[in-house]
Amino acid sequence: MRICGKNVAKEYLNTNEKINSAIVFENFNDEDLLNKLKKKTNNIKFVKKFELDRITKENHQGIILNIDDYKYSNLDELLKDENPLIVILDHIEDPHNFGAIIRTCEAANVTGIIIPKNRCVDVNETVIRTSVGASKYVKIVEITNIVNTIKELKSKGFWIVGTDMDGQDYSSIDYKGKTCVIVGNEGSGMSRIVRENCDFIATIPMNGKINSLNASVAAGIIIYEAVRIRNEL
Amino acid sequence: MRICGKNVAKEYLNTNEKINSAIVFENFNDEDLLNKLKKKTNNIKFVKKFELDRITKENHQGIILNIDDYKYSNLDELLKDENPLIVILDHIEDPHNFGAIIRTCEAANVTGIIIPKNRCVDVNETVIRTSVGASKYVKIVEITNIVNTIKELKSKGFWIVGTDMDGQDYSSIDYKGKTCVIVGNEGSGMSRIVRENCDFIATIPMNGKINSLNASVAAGIIIYEAVRIRNEL
Repeated sequence: MRICGKNVAKEYLNTNEKINSAIVFENFNDEDLLNKLKKKTNNIKFVKKFELDRITKENHQGIILNIDDYKYSNLDELLKDENPLIVILDHIEDPHNFGAIIRTCEAANVTGIIIPKNRCVDVNETVIRTSVGASKYVKIVEITNIVNTIKELKSKGFWIVGTDMDGQDYSSIDYKGKTCVIVGNEGSGMSRIVRENCDFIATIPMNGKINSLNASVAAGIIIYEAVRIRNEL
Repeated sequence: MRICGKNVAKEYLNTNEKINSAIVFENFNDEDLLNKLKKKTNNIKFVKKFELDRITKENHQGIILNIDDYKYSNLDELLKDENPLIVILDHIEDPHNFGAIIRTCEAANVTGIIIPKNRCVDVNETVIRTSVGASKYVKIVEITNIVNTIKELKSKGFWIVGTDMDGQDYSSIDYKGKTCVIVGNEGSGMSRIVRENCDFIATIPMNGKINSLNASVAAGIIIYEAVRIRNEL
C-alpha cells in the first residue's frame, strides 16, 4: 500500500512501522523529513514531479511511501480491555469520513473500531491519509456480520448504543462500563436489523430545518459524549 | 453560482430561493425532482452527459442549477437574537470542513457564523454542496477583522470562548447567555492575537498519540456541548 504527503509521512516515520521503499521528488526540500526517511529505508528513488503524479492522484507533496498493507486486529484483542468502549461502523462509505472517525477514536482513546467486510470502505490510502496517521494507533477489526458480532458482545456484557433519529437524547444515556456505540451509513443510517439489536438508541437533537449531520461529525459528538460521561465521578 | 447533484438540488428546491436556470441530463431519471424543478423555472436545458462534465468537475449526477450568488448577512442581524450563540471561524481553509460546520450549525440552530473576508474559504459551490443545503438556513457574516469583531461582541455582553490546546476542559465552561465560540484553522489553530482576546479557552481532551481532530469534528463536539449546557435547567 502507498501513503502520500508530508504530514502522513511524518506521522508514519514516528511509528515503529516498516517502510518498504520511498519515491521522492528530486528537489524535495524538507531535509528533516528526508533524513528521518533515510534512517528507515535505503530504498529511496528520487524522481521528477510528473513521475510522482503518474503514481497517484492524491496530493503527494513530493513524497510517496510504500508500506505493508494495513493489518487488521481481531475481536479478541479488543475484548482484553477491562473497560472497553468499542465503535461499530455500520457501512460507512466515504473514506474521508472513515479517516476522520479513526482520528476521533484515536484522540478519544477508544478500544477499537469494528467494520463489516462488505459494502464498507476498507483501510485504504485515502483513509490513512485522512486519519493523519491515527490508523496506526487504533485497533480496527473486520467482521463478516454485524448482528452476530453485536450478539457476541452482548453475551460478554456489553451495552449496545445505536445512533438514529427518534431515540432518547444522546446525553441522557449511561455509557459507563462495557459499551459499544454504532454509527450508521452516511445516507441510510443504521440498518433495520442492527437497530433492532440495540439496547439504546442515542439521538443528537436537531433544531434546524435540514437536520442532518456529517457522519464523522455525528460520530465525534456521540463518542466524546460517551467519553465525557464515562469520566464523570 | 452553480450547484450540482441530486441531493443539493432537492434541498434547494424545497426552499423559497430562486433558480435562474438548470442544465439537466437528457435521460435524467428522477421524475419527481424534475417536476419540482419545472415548477421553479422554465429555463431548463437538456443536454448530453459530456456537456454536464464540461461545466463542472463536481459529481453532478445529471443536474446543475444556476442560482444567485450567496447572500451574506450582516452582524446586526445576528445581534437581534435575544440569546445568541455565534460561531467564528478563524480562517478555515477546506470547503468540506466549512460545509460540514454549516451543517452542524444549522442542526444545532446557532444564531450565525462569522468568517473573515481574507484567507478563508467563502461560500462557494463545494461548500453549498457539502452543507447539503444547510447554507440556505444559516446566517453567515463576512467581516474584515476578527479581533475588532470580537471587541464589538464583548462590548455587547458576549463571552468569547476560543478552542485550543492547554485551556480548560471544554465541558467545564458555562456557555449560557450571549456566547461566541471560535474555531481555528485546520493546521495552525487560532491565531495568537485572536487567542489573546478570548475569555475562555476550551480544550477537547486528547488521550491518544496523534492528538488532533478534524476541524469540523472538533467544531461539532464544542458546538453541541455548548448547546447541551445552554439547555440544562
